[in-house]
Amino acid sequence: MSEPIFSPSPLLEVLKGECVSPPPLWLMRQAGRYLPEYREVRHGVPSFLDLCLTPKLAAEVTLQPLRRFPFDAGIVFSDILIVPFALGQSVAFVEGEGPKLEPLRDDAAIAKLDLETAGERLAPVYETVERVVAELPPSVPLIGFCGAPWTVATYMVEGSGSKDQASARRLAYRQPETFQRLIDLLVESSARYLLGQAKAGCRVLQIFDSWAGSLPEDEFERWCIVPTRAIVDRVKAHAPDIPIIGFPRGSGPLAERYAAKTAIDAVGCDTSLPAGWIRSALQTRLPVQGNLDPILLAAGGPALDTRVKWILETLGQGPFIFNLGHGILPETPIENVERLVALVKGASG
Amino acid sequence: MSEPIFSPSPLLEVLKGECVSPPPLWLMRQAGRYLPEYREVRHGVPSFLDLCLTPKLAAEVTLQPLRRFPFDAGIVFSDILIVPFALGQSVAFVEGEGPKLEPLRDDAAIAKLDLETAGERLAPVYETVERVVAELPPSVPLIGFCGAPWTVATYMVEGSGSKDQASARRLAYRQPETFQRLIDLLVESSARYLLGQAKAGCRVLQIFDSWAGSLPEDEFERWCIVPTRAIVDRVKAHAPDIPIIGFPRGSGPLAERYAAKTAIDAVGCDTSLPAGWIRSALQTRLPVQGNLDPILLAAGGPALDTRVKWILETLGQGPFIFNLGHGILPETPIENVERLVALVKGASG
Repeated sequence: MSEPIFSPSPLLEVLKGECVSPPPLWLMRQAGRYLPEYREVRHGVPSFLDLCLTPKLAAEVTLQPLRRFPFDAGIVFSDILIVPFALGQSVAFVEGEGPKLEPLRDDAAIAKLDLETAGERLAPVYETVERVVAELPPSVPLIGFCGAPWTVATYMVEGSGSKDQASARRLAYRQPETFQRLIDLLVESSARYLLGQAKAGCRVLQIFDSWAGSLPEDEFERWCIVPTRAIVDRVKAHAPDIPIIGFPRGSGPLAERYAAKTAIDAVGCDTSLPAGWIRSALQTRLPVQGNLDPILLAAGGPALDTRVKWILETLGQGPFIFNLGHGILPETPIENVERLVALVKGASG
Repeated sequence: MSEPIFSPSPLLEVLKGECVSPPPLWLMRQAGRYLPEYREVRHGVPSFLDLCLTPKLAAEVTLQPLRRFPFDAGIVFSDILIVPFALGQSVAFVEGEGPKLEPLRDDAAIAKLDLETAGERLAPVYETVERVVAELPPSVPLIGFCGAPWTVATYMVEGSGSKDQASARRLAYRQPETFQRLIDLLVESSARYLLGQAKAGCRVLQIFDSWAGSLPEDEFERWCIVPTRAIVDRVKAHAPDIPIIGFPRGSGPLAERYAAKTAIDAVGCDTSLPAGWIRSALQTRLPVQGNLDPILLAAGGPALDTRVKWILETLGQGPFIFNLGHGILPETPIENVERLVALVKGASG
């Protein structure tokens, strides 16, 4: 990690609309359980949330993948449910079961959420950012992130992960004003949180809308596009130079509308989107990121080589960030990541 | 159910490419738990599978929704996992937990599946079809169905429903020849099963590919499109006049490729596909079916009216079958279904 101080960042170049070859590469959940050094740190803390909220350790695990691999960005080690936690909702991560929250289903519960104390509860994340940025060369920006209001709301309303996000969708249909209050609160708290991460040193931001795909078009407009646009506008008003990547997972053809209307700088693509469609429907408009199947990265073999080359051929002629279509899986062998790096970084043309 | 014997079927008309106004209407899982008369029958049998395999009762629950609502089709009361059951895999439906199968992950397990005895084990379904058809007027065809090989394989490999269909995707990447053998067996058994239902009296068939959306494009081609095309070809060779609806749920922009390459007669659309895209990308090529959000039907209210009218306006000018984007939910109030029927059937122009 000693590079000349003004070395350019391939990721930032692409986010300005440049075509960079080989393309920048990072992986969603690149700091995580597939790394033995991560598992060692994780083993020493009582809970996942403790790890997120202990800056020294969170900074350490954020840096771990960057010591092993020449990734073009770091991403803050945290979780999208840190925002509900900061707002005062009870949030716990139960090993093997996923997140458990106190379900929040009416105006009274929403009224208890406290935007004003959230900043203080998020302070450890900002300290993590400062620690990481102090260690990174300028060519490797740190990405800050939040969950999109819709996706975060699905967990807040259900109290856990859920099949089809049914509780939140029901609430949104039956009590749209109530649900709107929750979304508005998440827009404000998420915008502040992203700005806090930017102020602490993040040079790129990403908004994860993991459950965008469960909404029909009208609800997609109202609960994904409009709130995302509101966050982008809020952030850009205070940090106009920080690019924002949006990731509307599962949105299918609606990704095009999302790219056109949210004012994001780049769009993350999930595994289900065909590369040719990404190129014609999205990349003609803005830089794209994605979309290798994490299960293929875990499986490895000749199919991995073939797919990586296909993605590079199809999307590498425009502004493109190589990534997975979803987070890296814990069972992914390190050597498969090394192989991926060789394939992408050997792709200079 | 006393109509003139030659009354035409709106559903069959649309499946020939005609535009019918008001459009034909049926609902996925229309025979099911939202009906009190269904719950009463279900209460009297030990298991869901017993209900599927008892022709008198299966016929009764198939007919129940048609006594209440003027739906334009019946659909055989059964389950997509009847095929693995028929092939000799152990299949059970555990109340509140979903299906449990003995997971099948290697060649030895696949070799134990028995295509030859499957016909006999499926005989009760054919008897159900005969019983139902004897009761239905000619204007109301009965739809037979099967799961698509990919979707059925995900349950067979995992042994249950699963997040992201990871076990099947892993097997398909790591041991494609093994997985191909399973898919080939499912192509053959599903084609025979569909033909059996057609022979017993079904005049329309549907192939449910509920987990098509978990595959990247190459795997979508290999495990969804090619096997579906093989089934369609097999069925059409023996029953050229029976239209087949394909339902590649969650396939996003890949639904266009599916519609172009599988030789199906109509494509079912899930809730995430925007109506304008369905019209331009799919309906210009073939009849479409869908795609009201089942959660909106359960929620009801003014939003239901607005959405139904929007779907009718956008898709009603071409060959269109009104349906949900996924199965009707058990909590759906009967009066909401009545409202839907009034909205769709009042839509004559």
